[in-house]
Amino acid sequence: MRQRNKPWADDFLMENKQLVIQNPSEHRGNWKAVFGNDHPIHIEVGTGKGQFIIGMAKQNPDVNFIGIELAKSVIVSAAEKVIESEQPNILLLNENASDLREIFTENEIAGMYLNFSDPWPKNRHEKRRLTHHAFLEQYKEILKEQAQLTFKTDNRGLFEYSLVSFSQFGMRLEEVNLHLHAFPDPLNIKTEYEEKFSEKGSRIYRVQASFN
Amino acid sequence: MRQRNKPWADDFLMENKQLVIQNPSEHRGNWKAVFGNDHPIHIEVGTGKGQFIIGMAKQNPDVNFIGIELAKSVIVSAAEKVIESEQPNILLLNENASDLREIFTENEIAGMYLNFSDPWPKNRHEKRRLTHHAFLEQYKEILKEQAQLTFKTDNRGLFEYSLVSFSQFGMRLEEVNLHLHAFPDPLNIKTEYEEKFSEKGSRIYRVQASFN
Repeated sequence: MRQRNKPWADDFLMENKQLVIQNPSEHRGNWKAVFGNDHPIHIEVGTGKGQFIIGMAKQNPDVNFIGIELAKSVIVSAAEKVIESEQPNILLLNENASDLREIFTENEIAGMYLNFSDPWPKNRHEKRRLTHHAFLEQYKEILKEQAQLTFKTDNRGLFEYSLVSFSQFGMRLEEVNLHLHAFPDPLNIKTEYEEKFSEKGSRIYRVQASFN
Repeated sequence: MRQRNKPWADDFLMENKQLVIQNPSEHRGNWKAVFGNDHPIHIEVGTGKGQFIIGMAKQNPDVNFIGIELAKSVIVSAAEKVIESEQPNILLLNENASDLREIFTENEIAGMYLNFSDPWPKNRHEKRRLTHHAFLEQYKEILKEQAQLTFKTDNRGLFEYSLVSFSQFGMRLEEVNLHLHAFPDPLNIKTEYEEKFSEKGSRIYRVQASFN
């Protein structure tokens, strides 16, 4: 999706560096200190404009959320919305999540969300899919035992691939939903994309799985 | 589905007892001898009127197939079609598949198919679903290592349940297809039910999984 050009983005991010954390690897192993409390920490990889993480933070005030988003022009929108929401339990990282182990230490994370990740449909791009086993290796390391990975997508091919990838990595499927919006679920926090596409009638798939 | 009343069914089955095997537990461990060759044996639980197993037997002449169907009036139709097909690599059992270990010994079976099994949607009937862990326990015992269990259904709830059940039993998902008829697949043999419902636009789900 094309974003408005935001030449002031760097300035904005620096002015809000208590929300959009610079040099996050410096806090590896100490994220509880950054939040200033002992609440469990959940992360979202690919936070987009922040609707999901803000909704989750409101719904779960005793959980701290870290949203990771590579696109600078997009994370600025998320940051603006987080500021407006006044939710204290959110931090954002403007990072390429290519190796989360550089940012988080073993067992530091209690929950993880992948929402509408890039499907990379070509076989030769399989390694870029965020549910490829090389990524699962990372997630397993930073996630606590029994922590859940929740993955939502409207892309059938990516979902099929991911179920097999999780299984073959030895993960345990806890819940599978093949048409999340067939019935209204007030507890399901929608991403911007999910809201738009479920309204158009697209099926949204969700799986919750754990490394155990 | 209501079947025509077939008072002659018992006579028919007795006349064709080389095809519809009586007292199958007597052949436990010796099914290769019944077929008269060493080909691997695949079973279908819930064979219905036989379209799937006949198609599979034609497609795989070096595999022996055993179709199991409880409803007498239905298995008669299957038997008539098998006779007409002249496929030599099919046997039928008019049995309640409540414990397959009474019919097959350990590692006797090289492949297994569950097609459009009764969804038993009520929670209190969970134990009757053919993908409940108590059934998986049986299948694991009679199936060879690396043997595949292939399950097709149009019932979303049963499919979601089964993916989780397989995973939690420690099975390995080999392939998941969430819309089998989105593209034509000449290798996919359709059941009667599948043909009818896929033509109406219903989604057909398929999973292949192994115990290992």
